[in-house]
Amino acid sequence: MRNILVIGSGKSTSYLIKYFLEKSESENLHITIGDINIENAKKLINNHPNANAITLDVFDKGSRKKAIENADIVVSMLPARFHIEVAKDCITYGTNMVTASYVSPEMQALDSAAKSKDLVFMNEIGVDPGIDHMSAMQVIDKIRDKGGEIILFESFTGGLVAPESDNNLWNYKFTWNPRNVVVAGQGGAAKFLQEGTYKYIPYHRLFRRTEFLDVDGYGRFEAYANRDSLKYQSAYGLNNAKTLYRGTMRRVGFSRAWQMFVLLGMTDDSYTIDDSENMSYRDFINAFLPYSPTDSVELKFRHQLKIDQDDIVWEKLEELDVFNSKKMVGLKKATPAQILQKILMDSWTLDKEDKDMIVMYHKFGYELKGKKYQIDSTMVSIGEDQTYTAMAKTVGLPVAIATLAILNGKITTPGVQIPISKEVYEPILKELETFNIAFTEKEVPYLGYNPLTT
Amino acid sequence: MRNILVIGSGKSTSYLIKYFLEKSESENLHITIGDINIENAKKLINNHPNANAITLDVFDKGSRKKAIENADIVVSMLPARFHIEVAKDCITYGTNMVTASYVSPEMQALDSAAKSKDLVFMNEIGVDPGIDHMSAMQVIDKIRDKGGEIILFESFTGGLVAPESDNNLWNYKFTWNPRNVVVAGQGGAAKFLQEGTYKYIPYHRLFRRTEFLDVDGYGRFEAYANRDSLKYQSAYGLNNAKTLYRGTMRRVGFSRAWQMFVLLGMTDDSYTIDDSENMSYRDFINAFLPYSPTDSVELKFRHQLKIDQDDIVWEKLEELDVFNSKKMVGLKKATPAQILQKILMDSWTLDKEDKDMIVMYHKFGYELKGKKYQIDSTMVSIGEDQTYTAMAKTVGLPVAIATLAILNGKITTPGVQIPISKEVYEPILKELETFNIAFTEKEVPYLGYNPLTT
Repeated sequence: MRNILVIGSGKSTSYLIKYFLEKSESENLHITIGDINIENAKKLINNHPNANAITLDVFDKGSRKKAIENADIVVSMLPARFHIEVAKDCITYGTNMVTASYVSPEMQALDSAAKSKDLVFMNEIGVDPGIDHMSAMQVIDKIRDKGGEIILFESFTGGLVAPESDNNLWNYKFTWNPRNVVVAGQGGAAKFLQEGTYKYIPYHRLFRRTEFLDVDGYGRFEAYANRDSLKYQSAYGLNNAKTLYRGTMRRVGFSRAWQMFVLLGMTDDSYTIDDSENMSYRDFINAFLPYSPTDSVELKFRHQLKIDQDDIVWEKLEELDVFNSKKMVGLKKATPAQILQKILMDSWTLDKEDKDMIVMYHKFGYELKGKKYQIDSTMVSIGEDQTYTAMAKTVGLPVAIATLAILNGKITTPGVQIPISKEVYEPILKELETFNIAFTEKEVPYLGYNPLTT
Repeated sequence: MRNILVIGSGKSTSYLIKYFLEKSESENLHITIGDINIENAKKLINNHPNANAITLDVFDKGSRKKAIENADIVVSMLPARFHIEVAKDCITYGTNMVTASYVSPEMQALDSAAKSKDLVFMNEIGVDPGIDHMSAMQVIDKIRDKGGEIILFESFTGGLVAPESDNNLWNYKFTWNPRNVVVAGQGGAAKFLQEGTYKYIPYHRLFRRTEFLDVDGYGRFEAYANRDSLKYQSAYGLNNAKTLYRGTMRRVGFSRAWQMFVLLGMTDDSYTIDDSENMSYRDFINAFLPYSPTDSVELKFRHQLKIDQDDIVWEKLEELDVFNSKKMVGLKKATPAQILQKILMDSWTLDKEDKDMIVMYHKFGYELKGKKYQIDSTMVSIGEDQTYTAMAKTVGLPVAIATLAILNGKITTPGVQIPISKEVYEPILKELETFNIAFTEKEVPYLGYNPLTT
């Protein structure tokens, strides 16, 4: 028996655990799931003979060390900030490790220790980051192998509601951490590269500078820029690329409506509102509008943002019931972002039967023998239900497949890493296809950003 | 001879030193001016027999202590962050101290030490903070003395160009630290109180939520809200006031035009632009606009901000020559705010003959025997030239007058304080009048923020 220790059993672990359980006989696996609360772990295990759940507080040194010492490989599905203690123990006990999180500076610092012990510390192997790395590098390497030079790389991901469950005017529901959606884009100007020129967008303009993306069979999407589109420039070997852009996808029209909240300051998470507990939704909106008791909150809102009487964004606002004077915020000393999140959760929480959807879109522009080409690559994954979501599938399966590949000695290059080498992405992408996580590539004319001049 | 030590001899010290020199005979004063560079000090002293300049590095413990030990009172005109070491030495040697700066937490922490040594540590006694405190408290105390209750207090100050030197479309020139003007309003939402309701304005809306103010003989101004209008609520004893608003004054139209820079992100001081050194002004503007080589930077700018062809803000932009492709930024790794400052300094630097102007406007709403009243109080001060500016006059004279009053035992209440008590403001405001720094009060109907309902 090989022992896999999975730490954390939250939303993103359903497919991961399912995969391990299904392979447990043929691969001779025993799966231990450690969490501070083992309710969900027990449900996911469903009395399977090759798995057990243990109560594990990652801050309790003794039990953490014991669990890791007994494991042949550790999968940490905790929030990113909790990985580091686990990682240090993995160094101590010589255990390989897998996470779906961004590599923190602390994690990166363990690189030489991991290498000296010949350990694989695989990170960023969920969906975004994860599948985006692998699917992008596969095409980039293919282009390079035939002698092409990448001049443009754009990459977009969206966690959305599936078309069959899409029944509100925003074409959006929370399929993941709502808080991240409310504060998305904050913390500094977005920076990217277009045709060799650096471009900067401040937060309060981000949602007005979207791009359109069409996905066959799924219609049109829009995307706003991520904060740092240049993050993986050197990791991907794209130092000569003239255009680098990474973004987040929404259905068309979301961003223009979201901009109302941004402009009035309702997404601010940097200060608390004094009497937030006793505010109605209407009071909350009014706190961002001029005092004028002779005018309605509605008209002040329209006037401040110059919203025409027949503009669809107004119907989107009304759908959220933000002008209700009976519904109470009920949160003590809350930030605007926390209050807005509460209001949105009334409308954007998935219903029992709702399904989610992950959409990914890459554009690769390249030059080969003096000619320019472009490949567009798209992937759509739709969830089964609220446990087996597309998010859990696209995050959990790459983690699970990578874990088994490491355990079986198919991925061996040691060190703290992300899945950008052929050794890693090739077998994983191949197996993901058997789970219907597959990319559709098509050649399109290279337009770049000079459509009218080329 | 009584020894006054003035530390710092920058722009704001001309009137201060002039005042001391003129009083030096009658008041038996010797003035020592310490600065790291004594050029300006020498110029201001102009060989006066009762004064001398010494080279003083405030970080050099030995010379600092020696200078303070020899002084009967210390005036620190350094930037606020440098006061604290001086203040600690003043505690050690039992010396009174005066500054025009905001009370820092470190300064406040010396309060009990100052009190136990019976020392006066007077702060915030320039113009804003300073004259605003004194002139406001004088009216507030007067209203209270006759039994009135303050229900509204609004206070506005502006450092502007004098009407006779006002010859650009922005009606603005830099009369003080340009950097503070470029980053004004940043760092969190502005918060104030209107008719009992807290209101919040995010930075990117601040310049679109201005109020108008008319000053007899000087025409109309506008004001945008300061970050924290509630800062002095308890110090002024205004805990029952329903409206509290503090703001910064500009000429009408400045803010609407300034908003262009805010919206595009050009006032951001939180990141640097990579190749800023080799950018033209036009490149800088273009970095905040979408890539589109078939369109001009001008049209992209107009389109992004929906600026009509005949809108005056466009002429204001052109006046700044921001679209010039020959003028180079020439600053290494500069933030957008630093680059914008450089561009603005081309146009907004005072000419040799230019004069500056300080404008202050207070509104006091109060209730007396069931009726509501309002007093508006205004002050305008115009500079003589570029050494004897209105800014130096309104900052330096209250400091100088307070210093002599403390030296002469007319202000004796010990501790770290700001000028809000009658003991302090009454003699100082009276003497300021002899320098033409005087407030005009007028009774106006109380309108509050319910003009249409009252």
